[in-house]
Amino acid sequence: MIQLPDAVRDLRARILAEGEVIGTDILKIDSFLNHQVDVRLLEDAGTELARRFAHAGATKVITVEASGIVPAAFTARALGVPLLFAKKALPSTIREGFFSSEVRSFTKNRTFDVAVSGRLISPADCLLIVDDFLAHGSTVQGLLHVAQQAGAQVAGVGIVVEKGFQSAGAALRAQGLEVVSLVVIEEMREGYIRFAEEAAPELRSARR
Amino acid sequence: MIQLPDAVRDLRARILAEGEVIGTDILKIDSFLNHQVDVRLLEDAGTELARRFAHAGATKVITVEASGIVPAAFTARALGVPLLFAKKALPSTIREGFFSSEVRSFTKNRTFDVAVSGRLISPADCLLIVDDFLAHGSTVQGLLHVAQQAGAQVAGVGIVVEKGFQSAGAALRAQGLEVVSLVVIEEMREGYIRFAEEAAPELRSARR
Repeated sequence: MIQLPDAVRDLRARILAEGEVIGTDILKIDSFLNHQVDVRLLEDAGTELARRFAHAGATKVITVEASGIVPAAFTARALGVPLLFAKKALPSTIREGFFSSEVRSFTKNRTFDVAVSGRLISPADCLLIVDDFLAHGSTVQGLLHVAQQAGAQVAGVGIVVEKGFQSAGAALRAQGLEVVSLVVIEEMREGYIRFAEEAAPELRSARR
Repeated sequence: MIQLPDAVRDLRARILAEGEVIGTDILKIDSFLNHQVDVRLLEDAGTELARRFAHAGATKVITVEASGIVPAAFTARALGVPLLFAKKALPSTIREGFFSSEVRSFTKNRTFDVAVSGRLISPADCLLIVDDFLAHGSTVQGLLHVAQQAGAQVAGVGIVVEKGFQSAGAALRAQGLEVVSLVVIEEMREGYIRFAEEAAPELRSARR
C-alpha cells in the first residue's frame, strides 16, 4: 500500500469534507485554502513542497497575489529563501522597471498583468513557482514569462491542488518543467471528486 | 535601558538599511515586507503580535489581501486560529452573502470594497485585525465595519509598521481599540527616519 505524505492525506480529507463542486470545473474550498485559511494545513503543504524541491537550488519562491501567498510563504520558509509575490495590476498601471506579463483569469473572465520589480530578480536567481491552484495554467505561464525576461532559471512548479482534467499540468511538464502537485483531481462533478492515482474511483462525500 | 523584542529590533534595522523614503509620507520597503518578503522576519513579527494579543481570545485573524497576508498568517499560526483574508473587489462585483465595506486607497487614489463571505464570520467570533502598514487606517475601518455587520467582537489591531505621524493609530485607540504596532515611525523624510519612543532622534542611513 502506498503511504501518502500527511500533507496530501490531510488536504484530500479537507477537500472531501468541505469542498463544493460547482458544475464540472469549479472547486470551492474557501473555508481552508483561499479565503479562510487553515494555516497549519498550509504550513504542512508548503513544507512538503519544499521537501520535494529540496534538490532544485531555488534562490526565491515566487507566486502571484493573493491566494498563492500562504503556501508559497511556508515553502520559502522551509527552504530558507525569500518569498516574492507578483502584483496583479491593470496593464495601464505597470510602471517602468517592472517585468510583467498578461494573464487571463478564466474564473473571472478578464485579463490582468502580473508584475515584479526588476530590482528583485536577476539572472543569478533560480525561481520556484508556487500556487494554490493549477487549472488553465495562465498564471504559471505569466510567471515563466517574467522569469525569462529577468534571465532567471526556474526550479520548478509546486501546486497545492491541480485540476488534472484541465490541460495545464501536462503542458508544463511537456515544456520540461518539474511540476509537483500535492493533490491532483482527475474528475469532479456535484457530489463527486476522484483524485489521481487512485485505483478505485468511488463516490465521495463532497457537499453538493 | 529598554530591551526591544527581537522582532522589533530586526524590523527597525531592516527599515533603516533598505527603506526608501519618498517625499514625507511614502516608505518603500518592498525588498522584505510587501513585494519580496523576508519570511523569517515576518514569522518573528507575526509571532510577536500573537504574544501581545495572547490574552485577547481571538478566534480568527483577519486581514485584507495581499500584503497583510504573510504577517497575519504567522500571527494566526502562533495563536492556533484560522486566517481570514478579505478580498479586494470592485463594488459592482460583490456577491450576495458577503459582508463588505468601501475602502479608500490613498496610495493608489482610488476606492475599492473589502469583502468577506457571510459564512465565515459569526457573532461567536472575536477577530484580531492584522496588517502590514497602518497609515490613514481606511483598511482597518473597513474590517471593523465588516466585523460589525457580522456581529463579531474585535480582539484588537496588530500592525507591523505604523506611520505614527498620520492620524489612524490615535483615532483607533480613541475608539477604545487595543492597537499594537511593532514599529512606529514618528517622522520621516528623504534619508531620515525617526522611530517613536526614541529619546535621541538622529540622522539615519535609510537610502534616498
